[in-house]
Amino acid sequence: MGPGKNASRTDLDLAFALGERLAEEGFIVLTGGRASGVMEAALKGAKSAGGITMGILPSEDGKDRSHYADIAIKTGIGSARNNINVLTADVVVGIGSGLGTTSEISLAMKADKPVVLLNQQQDSITFYKQFRYSKLQITSDVGEAVNSILKALSI
Amino acid sequence: MGPGKNASRTDLDLAFALGERLAEEGFIVLTGGRASGVMEAALKGAKSAGGITMGILPSEDGKDRSHYADIAIKTGIGSARNNINVLTADVVVGIGSGLGTTSEISLAMKADKPVVLLNQQQDSITFYKQFRYSKLQITSDVGEAVNSILKALSI
Amino acid sequence: MGPGKNASRTDLDLAFALGERLAEEGFIVLTGGRASGVMEAALKGAKSAGGITMGILPSEDGKDRSHYADIAIKTGIGSARNNINVLTADVVVGIGSGLGTTSEISLAMKADKPVVLLNQQQDSITFYKQFRYSKLQITSDVGEAVNSILKALSI
Amino acid sequence: MGPGKNASRTDLDLAFALGERLAEEGFIVLTGGRASGVMEAALKGAKSAGGITMGILPSEDGKDRSHYADIAIKTGIGSARNNINVLTADVVVGIGSGLGTTSEISLAMKADKPVVLLNQQQDSITFYKQFRYSKLQITSDVGEAVNSILKALSI
Repeated sequence: MGPGKNASRTDLDLAFALGERLAEEGFIVLTGGRASGVMEAALKGAKSAGGITMGILPSEDGKDRSHYADIAIKTGIGSARNNINVLTADVVVGIGSGLGTTSEISLAMKADKPVVLLNQQQDSITFYKQFRYSKLQITSDVGEAVNSILKALSI
Repeated sequence: MGPGKNASRTDLDLAFALGERLAEEGFIVLTGGRASGVMEAALKGAKSAGGITMGILPSEDGKDRSHYADIAIKTGIGSARNNINVLTADVVVGIGSGLGTTSEISLAMKADKPVVLLNQQQDSITFYKQFRYSKLQITSDVGEAVNSILKALSI
Repeated sequence: MGPGKNASRTDLDLAFALGERLAEEGFIVLTGGRASGVMEAALKGAKSAGGITMGILPSEDGKDRSHYADIAIKTGIGSARNNINVLTADVVVGIGSGLGTTSEISLAMKADKPVVLLNQQQDSITFYKQFRYSKLQITSDVGEAVNSILKALSI
Repeated sequence: MGPGKNASRTDLDLAFALGERLAEEGFIVLTGGRASGVMEAALKGAKSAGGITMGILPSEDGKDRSHYADIAIKTGIGSARNNINVLTADVVVGIGSGLGTTSEISLAMKADKPVVLLNQQQDSITFYKQFRYSKLQITSDVGEAVNSILKALSI
């Protein structure tokens, strides 16, 4: 999970690298599915490694779909779909900072999912730490993020 | 789309056969995903032919999931997910008669999707025909259903 | 619940009269809330009798809102909101024939709500009767519809 | 919007006082509607001043409903209903700190709604300020919150 048009260069690079690594590990990479920012970069990375990708879209018609999403779920429920993203995921990774991303990270913690924060600013880390959530991992390294995911799933 | 626990033997047999044929044609088979009735039979048929299967579940936790669904979307939105099923599908096939099925067939027509009715009673056919929906095909044969799907998608 | 732009003159007249009578009985009248067809006619009838009205809208921004809805819920979830309409209502009345209406009537029966069908064609009555739903009442008279509602709620 | 069972005494007192003041100003007070924490305190305050109250519930059956909600919307969509809360509100007030509350504040900013933060810790204020959102007001005083609301609506 991560910002669309406001994603930074670092966000995009990390998203691509994480998508690639997760595909190599055999995971299906799931994002918000739009042709924008972290969502698309992670899908693109996964496809570069021959992975399977999925996007859960806000739209009814799928016009916002990234071509790197093998499977697109057209929810037609707008930002309410953020909760479906986190319920469907086994682990939620938040890359970078955005409003939709914030809603997804908080909904993921509410849904008791393992959450990994990657490339978050110190202010955001301080904010999320206040919830004393035991399944939260914080890192700025893709390799460590992958290890956190594997550990969270006891693989 | 089709009934869960109230599915008839014929509904289940047709759902299995259709799932099998669609998988052979290379389609992803998408159903409501629960471990019950037409939903599960179609997924089971698709898996028997080595296909990829998907279930869009009403539950938050996926406990209702069929083991024949490769990918399970845990929507947490109950029967409101029926609309996501039909928006996500390229063609909607209604097998047999049920309340959830009725909502899906009507929502599919509202969303302007090609709809194929398979094994519907005469009273249901008469009912659906009143909407004079141009993308509606009615059949009791799996082969004809597959042909209608291919034609609807201009394949 | 009833059709928007495809509502017949009789549908609109019955919706207005029912809204009026329900407001007189002290009910809040809830519809799909759009400025169209049966939805608006029922709200208009209720307001003519000084009632409180509510619309549960498909849109995010409420631009589709009828001015006769005192309270507008902007769901942003499109036709998936049909299920919220029926879950929120104590009794669901279906007036006339439409695709959205069909989905609402079937979802209402699935949700175990009392359902009253008003001004339905014989083909539709035959269709809905096949489900042998014990909380279904069928009438073409507004007074009888009100009595069915009061009885369903044991008032 | 505010936490349920984890609300602090101050959160509850502010929510009650705000509900009371908003009812006096003639507003309908809308919360998440559950019989818990800030949601219920705000509704209770509004009822103490004779206001109209509304709750948009996560549940299908309304068993989680506060008795201080005059009108209860039973969405059946769980935490996805958070987005309906913010779309339906004219102004969103976040009181105290919680995961659901965080999702609602961020979704409200995403939906371009005026947002007032009341009784937020400094870490949260620092976090939300990073989005440089122009319609954000921060206060620890109920009177100032009401003024911000009136100003946001140009009343």
